[in-house]
Amino acid sequence: MFQIPRGTRDFTPKEMDKRRYVEESMKKTFTTFGYREIQTPLFEHLELFTAKSGEGIVDELYSFEDKSGRQLALRPELTAPVIRFYVDRLQMEPKPLKLCYFGNCFRYDRPQKGRYREFWQAGCEIIGTNTAEAYAELIALAYYILKNVGVQQIQLCIGNLTILSSIFTQFHLSEEDQKKLTPLIDKAQYDEVSLVLEQLGVDQQKIHEFLDVLQTSDTKKIQQQIKGDAAAEKEFIFLETVLDFLKHSFHINDYQIKLSIVRGLDYYSGLVFEIDAPVLGAEKQLCGGGVYELLSLFGGTPTSTAGFAIGFDRTILALETEQFSFPSRHIDVYIIPVNEDMIPIALEIAYDLRKEGIVVDIDLLRRGVGKSLKYANSVQATKAILVGPKELEKQALTLRNLETGEQHIVPRKKIVSTLQQ
Amino acid sequence: MFQIPRGTRDFTPKEMDKRRYVEESMKKTFTTFGYREIQTPLFEHLELFTAKSGEGIVDELYSFEDKSGRQLALRPELTAPVIRFYVDRLQMEPKPLKLCYFGNCFRYDRPQKGRYREFWQAGCEIIGTNTAEAYAELIALAYYILKNVGVQQIQLCIGNLTILSSIFTQFHLSEEDQKKLTPLIDKAQYDEVSLVLEQLGVDQQKIHEFLDVLQTSDTKKIQQQIKGDAAAEKEFIFLETVLDFLKHSFHINDYQIKLSIVRGLDYYSGLVFEIDAPVLGAEKQLCGGGVYELLSLFGGTPTSTAGFAIGFDRTILALETEQFSFPSRHIDVYIIPVNEDMIPIALEIAYDLRKEGIVVDIDLLRRGVGKSLKYANSVQATKAILVGPKELEKQALTLRNLETGEQHIVPRKKIVSTLQQ
Repeated sequence: MFQIPRGTRDFTPKEMDKRRYVEESMKKTFTTFGYREIQTPLFEHLELFTAKSGEGIVDELYSFEDKSGRQLALRPELTAPVIRFYVDRLQMEPKPLKLCYFGNCFRYDRPQKGRYREFWQAGCEIIGTNTAEAYAELIALAYYILKNVGVQQIQLCIGNLTILSSIFTQFHLSEEDQKKLTPLIDKAQYDEVSLVLEQLGVDQQKIHEFLDVLQTSDTKKIQQQIKGDAAAEKEFIFLETVLDFLKHSFHINDYQIKLSIVRGLDYYSGLVFEIDAPVLGAEKQLCGGGVYELLSLFGGTPTSTAGFAIGFDRTILALETEQFSFPSRHIDVYIIPVNEDMIPIALEIAYDLRKEGIVVDIDLLRRGVGKSLKYANSVQATKAILVGPKELEKQALTLRNLETGEQHIVPRKKIVSTLQQ
Repeated sequence: MFQIPRGTRDFTPKEMDKRRYVEESMKKTFTTFGYREIQTPLFEHLELFTAKSGEGIVDELYSFEDKSGRQLALRPELTAPVIRFYVDRLQMEPKPLKLCYFGNCFRYDRPQKGRYREFWQAGCEIIGTNTAEAYAELIALAYYILKNVGVQQIQLCIGNLTILSSIFTQFHLSEEDQKKLTPLIDKAQYDEVSLVLEQLGVDQQKIHEFLDVLQTSDTKKIQQQIKGDAAAEKEFIFLETVLDFLKHSFHINDYQIKLSIVRGLDYYSGLVFEIDAPVLGAEKQLCGGGVYELLSLFGGTPTSTAGFAIGFDRTILALETEQFSFPSRHIDVYIIPVNEDMIPIALEIAYDLRKEGIVVDIDLLRRGVGKSLKYANSVQATKAILVGPKELEKQALTLRNLETGEQHIVPRKKIVSTLQQ
């Protein structure tokens, strides 16, 4: 027997119903916001990913050499391929460009609960605008994608890397110190942040103030802290405009300011945001995004870009944990030829019903009425049609409701219209 | 600038609209026939594919070693993974099991028109039945998937490997001779078949007879040829039953008997079929399938299996060549705030409309009415809403039909219902 590769998954019909529901719901929300879907290849030249994330990423990649000696890698994320595609072929399109995508990504990593070697992401990029309304719309899109798909409890946190950077400066932290601190801040390990600052000789009062402003949701306090830094003050006003749009135009009031969002990535700047599903505990982040700059690195003409990615598998996990009732797809009608002579007419009825979009299955094993009804129940068919010689003599069929057990005779000619009701 | 890997493709929004249309149409037909979707990983252990197709396949594979020394390969086709999945987890499901799938596959091959290194397949398997009605339904499914998606001109050819094998025996061809001949027969290179037979010492009259029966559509002639071979005679009667179902129950009359279908694969037996799109010329085959046996090879309990695969890319190429008019997705409404003060209310109108599933885009660049209308036309928006201070004073908006240029004033409160009409 052959094994499935470690860290990957097969999906049963029931699991695929869930995944298709989530994908279709997300796609619908992207579409109503004016986003259009694109797709890039499953693998890229390795250098695309090392250019974006550094040589260190190679350890986490499925990389390989093809038969012509090209260094390739299965994509670990979708932003780099999308920006490559944009630089290559889409730069002349009218701006802003709103692009969305769904795809599987790969990471060579120890498999854990909710973390797989093959995983799925949904995401988008908006290219060519940097207005407050554009970013408010982007955040609202991420928020409503998760709301519309059915996640009950979500937590939207908004940060700003320009303001965070200004606070670092206010506390006289060198760039090297910042590099030490940001991973700890990102993981909310504030005890260790405190320890590092002590080691750097910062006094207790200052440390307390620093941790306070990093964790506050009070915009006044933040404003106070950055006073005198013109760039940060401007960014602050911009942030307030974004928040106003979110509140008054998009009806989103349940957000939180969280300056500790770092996004751990070198190419983000300004606005950043994350959406969590608290129900998932430690691995709760469903979405991360913000404003970034990759175009110049990829050989394109720099223009404002922003986007986000949503973890597809974790979104499904959140829905399952919240006991969301996924819409399930049933067999509408199961057709049973009572004997072998009835098979041609039974197939023809199937043909007629399928033509109208009705989901039909039919006994293909000649196993008789009793066993066929049992099978129909096991595949959750809603109704059954029994095709028998006695009824057929009168140009009629037996229609049975499999939920109630009720059955009645329907003229052959009226079977389609009866089932369409 | 980074290059896309050779033989792979990026898909623009317009191309993705086509691909999604084809996928959704195919999915719908699969569903109405009672098939349910499954999914397997992007890569498998290399040995899965060599077990099925022999060591020779390695040359055409993207294979690589992962960081733990596992030999993996990007899947070159989907049947082997699906059968592995079935053996692993689905053997206990009620029979017959009707499974369908869509996925990208990989082949290390010289890229040519219509042949890519990353390509897409749709396919299905039916496991656990071998009745004539089951196989007729399977062939009808392939036929109607291509018809329903919109391919005008298709050619369904049905063969039978049991009968072919019987004819080989009638002409006293050894297994070794058969192996030489089948690839030539598969490619319809009858001149070369003739040459090989001559070299084998078969006389001209016999060669003529042999080529005639291989190419005939006349079932009587075939029946004559296999007289006395009980297995082939039984298979012939079975084939006739399948054809009767196709004609009378599934309304398919435009099929052809073609004994020269070999499918080039060791594990097929009995019924085989292919569907071509003649419009595509040399690379015309869209679909291939039949009855096969892989379960015992993969460690499963043997039971009847049959299935087919459809080339997704070639189907799109056939539609394009036939100038099929793909449904295109438009922006329903483009909203233009006339000045900056109008932005919050413009965003709120967008919010209200999107909630109802209307596809909305909005000016996110503050570029004024003239340029915004130009952009709206470039993204093929059907309507525009102008949000201006004068109208808004009277709680109203300007709704403009971008196709006719007509515009009229609509009360703010009635904008959703007006657009839903």
